Amino acid sequence: MARTAISGFPEWLPQERSVELQVVDRLRRVFETHGFVNVETRSVEPLGALEAKGETSKEIYLLSRLQSQRESSGSVELSPTRTLGLHFDLTVPLARYVVENSGSLIFPFRRYQMQKVWRGERPQEGRFREFTQADIDIVGQGELAWHHDAEAAQVMLEALASLNLGEVVMQVNNRRLLQAVLEAHGVSDIPAALRALDKFDKVGAEGVAKELAELGLGEEESAAVLRAAAITAVSGAELRTKLEAAGLDPEQLEPGLSELSQVLDAVEAPEGTRFEAALRIARGLDYYTGTVYETVLPGHESFGSICSGGRYDQLAISGKRTFPGVGLSIGVTRLVALMLSSGLGPQGIPTPTKVLVLVNDEDSRAASEEVARTLRGRGIPTEVSPSAQKYGRQIRYADRKGIPYVWFVQEQGGAVKDIRTGDQVDASPQDWSPLA
Amino acid sequence: MARTAISGFPEWLPQERSVELQVVDRLRRVFETHGFVNVETRSVEPLGALEAKGETSKEIYLLSRLQSQRESSGSVELSPTRTLGLHFDLTVPLARYVVENSGSLIFPFRRYQMQKVWRGERPQEGRFREFTQADIDIVGQGELAWHHDAEAAQVMLEALASLNLGEVVMQVNNRRLLQAVLEAHGVSDIPAALRALDKFDKVGAEGVAKELAELGLGEEESAAVLRAAAITAVSGAELRTKLEAAGLDPEQLEPGLSELSQVLDAVEAPEGTRFEAALRIARGLDYYTGTVYETVLPGHESFGSICSGGRYDQLAISGKRTFPGVGLSIGVTRLVALMLSSGLGPQGIPTPTKVLVLVNDEDSRAASEEVARTLRGRGIPTEVSPSAQKYGRQIRYADRKGIPYVWFVQEQGGAVKDIRTGDQVDASPQDWSPLA
Repeated sequence: MARTAISGFPEWLPQERSVELQVVDRLRRVFETHGFVNVETRSVEPLGALEAKGETSKEIYLLSRLQSQRESSGSVELSPTRTLGLHFDLTVPLARYVVENSGSLIFPFRRYQMQKVWRGERPQEGRFREFTQADIDIVGQGELAWHHDAEAAQVMLEALASLNLGEVVMQVNNRRLLQAVLEAHGVSDIPAALRALDKFDKVGAEGVAKELAELGLGEEESAAVLRAAAITAVSGAELRTKLEAAGLDPEQLEPGLSELSQVLDAVEAPEGTRFEAALRIARGLDYYTGTVYETVLPGHESFGSICSGGRYDQLAISGKRTFPGVGLSIGVTRLVALMLSSGLGPQGIPTPTKVLVLVNDEDSRAASEEVARTLRGRGIPTEVSPSAQKYGRQIRYADRKGIPYVWFVQEQGGAVKDIRTGDQVDASPQDWSPLA
Repeated sequence: MARTAISGFPEWLPQERSVELQVVDRLRRVFETHGFVNVETRSVEPLGALEAKGETSKEIYLLSRLQSQRESSGSVELSPTRTLGLHFDLTVPLARYVVENSGSLIFPFRRYQMQKVWRGERPQEGRFREFTQADIDIVGQGELAWHHDAEAAQVMLEALASLNLGEVVMQVNNRRLLQAVLEAHGVSDIPAALRALDKFDKVGAEGVAKELAELGLGEEESAAVLRAAAITAVSGAELRTKLEAAGLDPEQLEPGLSELSQVLDAVEAPEGTRFEAALRIARGLDYYTGTVYETVLPGHESFGSICSGGRYDQLAISGKRTFPGVGLSIGVTRLVALMLSSGLGPQGIPTPTKVLVLVNDEDSRAASEEVARTLRGRGIPTEVSPSAQKYGRQIRYADRKGIPYVWFVQEQGGAVKDIRTGDQVDASPQDWSPLA
């Protein structure tokens, strides 16, 4: 990581940034191949909109103008409409954008959005306070068919597969199913039980059992909940069989069971990925109403979910109109940090330049520029040597920058040398090409 | 423009955003073809760094954390090191980044950066308070040869030419030359005279003359300054001739005259662009030390410069090390706003989707998904119809979204219809391709 003086605001060196760029490019390609349009929203929302869902878990950065600070000797007004804060996710802005522009959008509205978000976390937690998120969402007007829940997972699985992260496991659950399972076992405080289940990966079965006991659940019921929560399945049929084996009546688990089964059976996990139901997944801190998703990289479980989301039956409401949505989000900056530290994914590229055209002397720089112009016109990224030093020093400059070829400008034609192998051939800028 | 409730924070509808994306993609391609690496810097800098150059013309947004606001009942500390503000350009962050990472960078460091910047302008001025800038800079360590001043202009001219904006005119000047001209005519307060010249396009020759008179310049000298300021030239030879004709002694105009002439003669303006010296260009509010650039679109002069910049002999200083730099910046959001209102540049694309695969009934949705998967695998952006309505309604959905083709799934093979022409042909997803 680049040196940076402000904790939580990461910066990459150029070669590291090239990894992030490749990630963003690959995600974009998959999203667009599935017909998602790109949107950016402003970075700020009124404080009231940011706090509308009571998201106290997400620390908000407020804005104030320096001039008015000086005029008012440093006091900030806290008005829900006039005070602006930086967005902490891309979902709150999407909901507003959809309502504001519903007359100009065609539903189901399928959009991807890749932008920075900010969270004023306390620095000692070691979290990022500024990071890039890549979100896809499908938003309906009035209704949104179940198959979009499968589609969102399908698109993100293909997007993640394109990053060459090794194995990717996306786990899916359904809040309605989970709620029915909890109710079948006598749980009354469903939100509290969901939050307890959310800690499964952190505190283990015993920790969750303890929390369930605190909710008044008996030992037997608690054990039954944990048995159900441990269920995973790759098909609707397997899911149904395992629920029955756990003593649950499928009839009592509808419509959640059918919803989850349909999604499970509709997704075709691309090579290198697995898509499975995991009844443990609760996402208790978020406001999902049906399908929920989490994604882990086996071997990097402690890193947590790299791509999460779910369905909101009421992503947005405007008068009598309701906009249901389903979406998933990748924390790009965190993922890139993992890729850089673990060597997963695409390799960094030190420079886009393929050829350094050497300069014989400053008076003939124009001749070198002419060669470079021809190469660039053919799409080959090319630089001209910044100074007419001895060839050896110019070649060393190329080597230090990671430029693979140097070009010798000669009166008749030229020659190009692959400095990785030392191979040199006569070449013309009109038809020479670097190896792929 | 998309509807938005907060003045100065523009948002685009998807089709408008597609124009901005094309702009960003084309700029990036040209920058990378010239071997510039991409970098992003954090959005915030300490207040002291943002104010280091006394840039009172640029209003700064400060950040504060909501929680600490509540704890401290709404007061903001104004500390140069601890208070963070959003960056108002990409030059201040670049200077810091270069110093912090100088050990990891190879100089001359050539980078492009495309990011949002923020300025807390008063909303009534109708300016953007959040917008995207696209910058290129070349930064040396200790020294930076003159030919990089030509290179920066060359790259930006090619980048602007790639946007199909019609004619683009980049005007270049040299602060040292302008200063020598002003001194030759007896001007003593050079900064004030530069600021006066900066208003040439706004207030005309008379307005500038008035300001020069206020600086104590006689009528004759003032007229001579204005005659010199009116000089434009496309070559070093023409420039010298015109300066001599204006009664100036070229010997007294060095080294500025040679610097400007060299830059002028080294740039090969691509088709559709013009590169010329214009002695009027002062950029008096910025801290440039040599070459300065501005760029106008003929017919849209009132819009102001779409791409400006210059050379800083001391972009950054660290201990005994000095980092000179030269760079240019495009205000992407403003330019896109102009493109959208004037119809210049690339056309908007309503959706990346080329084909809508129709669904015969919900039970056979998987067959439609299979066709879509094959088309996507061949790089053709494809959607599956969101519902199994009558064909006519599904086709109307494609039409409203601007999807050119619909695909009929049949038991044996299929058929594809171009809904713009009505042409329909039998087709297989393995080998059919849309027209370019």
